[in-house]
Amino acid sequence: MRAAVMRGKHLETDTLAEPEPGDGQVLVKTLACRICGSDLHALQHGDRMAAAAKEMGAPSTFDPEGDVVMGHEFCAEILDFGPNTLRTLKVGDRVCSMPVLFHPGGIAGIGYSNLFPGGYGERMVLSEPMLLRVSDDLPTEAAALTEPMAVGIHAVAKAKLEKNEAALVVGCGPVGLAVIPGLRLQGIEPIVAADFSVRRRELAKHMGAHVVLDPKQEAPFERLAKDAGAKQPVIFECVGVPGLIQQILRDAPHGSRVVVAGVCMEEDRIQPFMGISKEIQLQFVLGYTPEEFTHTLEAITDGRIDGSPLITGKVGVDGVPEAFEALGQPEAHAKVLVEPWREGGLE
Amino acid sequence: MRAAVMRGKHLETDTLAEPEPGDGQVLVKTLACRICGSDLHALQHGDRMAAAAKEMGAPSTFDPEGDVVMGHEFCAEILDFGPNTLRTLKVGDRVCSMPVLFHPGGIAGIGYSNLFPGGYGERMVLSEPMLLRVSDDLPTEAAALTEPMAVGIHAVAKAKLEKNEAALVVGCGPVGLAVIPGLRLQGIEPIVAADFSVRRRELAKHMGAHVVLDPKQEAPFERLAKDAGAKQPVIFECVGVPGLIQQILRDAPHGSRVVVAGVCMEEDRIQPFMGISKEIQLQFVLGYTPEEFTHTLEAITDGRIDGSPLITGKVGVDGVPEAFEALGQPEAHAKVLVEPWREGGLE
Repeated sequence: MRAAVMRGKHLETDTLAEPEPGDGQVLVKTLACRICGSDLHALQHGDRMAAAAKEMGAPSTFDPEGDVVMGHEFCAEILDFGPNTLRTLKVGDRVCSMPVLFHPGGIAGIGYSNLFPGGYGERMVLSEPMLLRVSDDLPTEAAALTEPMAVGIHAVAKAKLEKNEAALVVGCGPVGLAVIPGLRLQGIEPIVAADFSVRRRELAKHMGAHVVLDPKQEAPFERLAKDAGAKQPVIFECVGVPGLIQQILRDAPHGSRVVVAGVCMEEDRIQPFMGISKEIQLQFVLGYTPEEFTHTLEAITDGRIDGSPLITGKVGVDGVPEAFEALGQPEAHAKVLVEPWREGGLE
Repeated sequence: MRAAVMRGKHLETDTLAEPEPGDGQVLVKTLACRICGSDLHALQHGDRMAAAAKEMGAPSTFDPEGDVVMGHEFCAEILDFGPNTLRTLKVGDRVCSMPVLFHPGGIAGIGYSNLFPGGYGERMVLSEPMLLRVSDDLPTEAAALTEPMAVGIHAVAKAKLEKNEAALVVGCGPVGLAVIPGLRLQGIEPIVAADFSVRRRELAKHMGAHVVLDPKQEAPFERLAKDAGAKQPVIFECVGVPGLIQQILRDAPHGSRVVVAGVCMEEDRIQPFMGISKEIQLQFVLGYTPEEFTHTLEAITDGRIDGSPLITGKVGVDGVPEAFEALGQPEAHAKVLVEPWREGGLE
């Protein structure tokens, strides 16, 4: 099959062996797979990711020295069943799945594994127990939003928000744009969202932010204090670059709770005294639970989350390297959808 | 009056003007004042403390360029009342107070103010509404434990512990030795405490740690996993030097809650990815509430907290500079008590 392959620090298209479904696994055709910000990180900093996982003793089948077909935000169609499958769904059904695969050697992260290809290839194997059927009414590209939106639902759930709290979303990239609808689903008001990019501020507004601002023009914490009134603000760090946590420790009000949802893969510097003297809480978050993943697909299906404007480009396998470059430009493309069956480049 | 004065980065003894009680204030004789680890920090890094407070926009009457009489862990005796006082207590009563003074210009931190002397001088002024009467049965030096023990009570309260949680106390200096009895009062078991110093491990045991260990001999998190069984551990960082937070992010189990109670005044480096991939929570803490301060004095009075072995040296005003030097040696003195009325050096 054709796939976009991460090879060293480059992406190239190649023809790979067909994946074969093992025990409890299902062969699927990738209908659509979104390009995630983490994949842009991984292409540049895959070695650091692997080293950090090793240092923490986390099991991983991800070695950036070997070939990796990334892609973990997908909607797929069932083609065939492997041995020892229940087959409650049928060939032709569209499905979503958490990007987690059970295999005889353990658990692999789909999209971050040398053993199993992710969604930037024409076909994948998935674990049957992880499959969620996609309702016939739901467009494929909306279903492919489940994974990134689940990240926001989870970050908000970890914040354990109270009704009398307000939120500041720092950064309206893919993580921030998933946190905002998560906050809306909880009835949080106001949601103040900050980003330097006009395009991202527009998307933040669409996703449910009550107030959007450009930090170059207006201090986010001053605006928050004005708009939140007596409500205690919870801050969502959705950028993930060095310096952001320290900036929040410096500017956030006393007693703030900060959810760190941006994935910073580099070393960072903080002044603990800032956090200490304001008794700030930093809650680092990642991923989601199976329940959160399921609830996210439900919220997309019944229209409580509408992410349609988040898709701003579509490519076939051959267009993936070009799309990765385009995603470096925040004004251009918030999210690009890979349709591996499609011919041609970015459109 | 005689006092030990912080002048630049040095301590020297001098004769200063007598403090005079203003509206709502009371003149007291300092009976005993403990030397706090923060004062050792402040002598070296007072400029950073002041700069950080300024950067955060915190009000402060602390300028390390000017003279400061430090000392904020004290027990005192009422000598006289200023104007507009209620005088419900009487001259000769022994009292404790949070080190906070109300004055016409605002609020000053007793022991960190150029305007009002702290406990390393013979006399101070205190705010009458902050006074807590010390029971006749309670030794003065035990009453002087209220402030440092309240720090531990507060750190534990901020952790919002559940009965099914265990605790690891990293560092058994003054903060760790206050956190341990705080954990005991909550019925937490096991309390595993780690320190390189034999002397400090002995004190940790006395204060209520179930297990003490030397991190050079045994990995704290491995021991914790063994002794805590299925209980979720909460980690108390009580050291406050650069590198400690990162070490905990690296070694702590997934989902750990970490209370950062050690006061690190220097810049620190972390790898956010470690915290993110384990969804760790860092709760920075400082100080205590008036209620916690009051409850701490009650717990000391009725014997639920016994800090008697924590006093390992006594000095008069003239011995304070020498005591500061001795406190750099962890094996020698966990806490030194200043008795400003006493003649002579460290004994």
